[in-house]
Amino acid sequence: MKNFFEYNWQVRDEWLNWCDQLTTEELLKERIGGAGGILYTLFHIIDVEYSWLRGIQNKEDVVFEFDDYKTLVKVKALSNTLRYEIVEFLKSHLDDGQDGFVTVPWDEGEYTKNEILHHIIAHEIHHIGQLSVWAREIELTPVSANFIGRKLNSVHF
Amino acid sequence: MKNFFEYNWQVRDEWLNWCDQLTTEELLKERIGGAGGILYTLFHIIDVEYSWLRGIQNKEDVVFEFDDYKTLVKVKALSNTLRYEIVEFLKSHLDDGQDGFVTVPWDEGEYTKNEILHHIIAHEIHHIGQLSVWAREIELTPVSANFIGRKLNSVHF
Repeated sequence: MKNFFEYNWQVRDEWLNWCDQLTTEELLKERIGGAGGILYTLFHIIDVEYSWLRGIQNKEDVVFEFDDYKTLVKVKALSNTLRYEIVEFLKSHLDDGQDGFVTVPWDEGEYTKNEILHHIIAHEIHHIGQLSVWAREIELTPVSANFIGRKLNSVHF
Repeated sequence: MKNFFEYNWQVRDEWLNWCDQLTTEELLKERIGGAGGILYTLFHIIDVEYSWLRGIQNKEDVVFEFDDYKTLVKVKALSNTLRYEIVEFLKSHLDDGQDGFVTVPWDEGEYTKNEILHHIIAHEIHHIGQLSVWAREIELTPVSANFIGRKLNSVHF
């Protein structure tokens, strides 16, 4: 589980840096499928990860509005700020029992922590796949999605 | 790890069934990004999973040519046939030591089994994300990528 978080964060950072070459217009342009745009997808991944991780901790959800994060600098800062808190939590609780049921305000279901951790991981990889199609549409080379061949930065879980 | 394989296989089967509504032309049409087409993406996912799983077992690679699998029926059959063998292997070896290094003929690197299992999982989720963009491009609703809210079929690992 830990390795997938490290992978996702490394790939996300590479995409955030990849975005440096895009104009604001390209970042915000409405696109077909997925979450509907490049910068919004990255914002959405960050937001969803954080919301579910607060859900697991029975903490109140913090709602972020994309209108307040419509620049690359702001999305990068949001990712970095929230990651710090997430690492602190996962470091001490990743191996805790994951069978207790969790409910959250934005979803009617009842899920185990283990399911939610899987969901967060798959959610990010899925949306990153969509970024790579949009990258090709604007004739840019996407960030590699390979898990192998990366040196993952251990986040000291 | 087991849960991600079950998730990927369930989602893959849903996509293979989703493809029933497409014409051969749509299935084979060249598209921008990813592996370049809907049926080819599904074939590629199956092929890559099988190759790496044989690699882990130090078995010789079996090369499949897409030219021999250019219908949905054939790709579905390939997925089902190979899955049977994969389940049998994972059932008895998923929890084996995963630290030994593996080399394969199609890649210069040297990877642990654990890395390869992560790679297979992320590889499929990534490409499935691409299918969902193409689905919207042809104005169809993609298969859900949610991990939560699914009843995963236990494949009796």
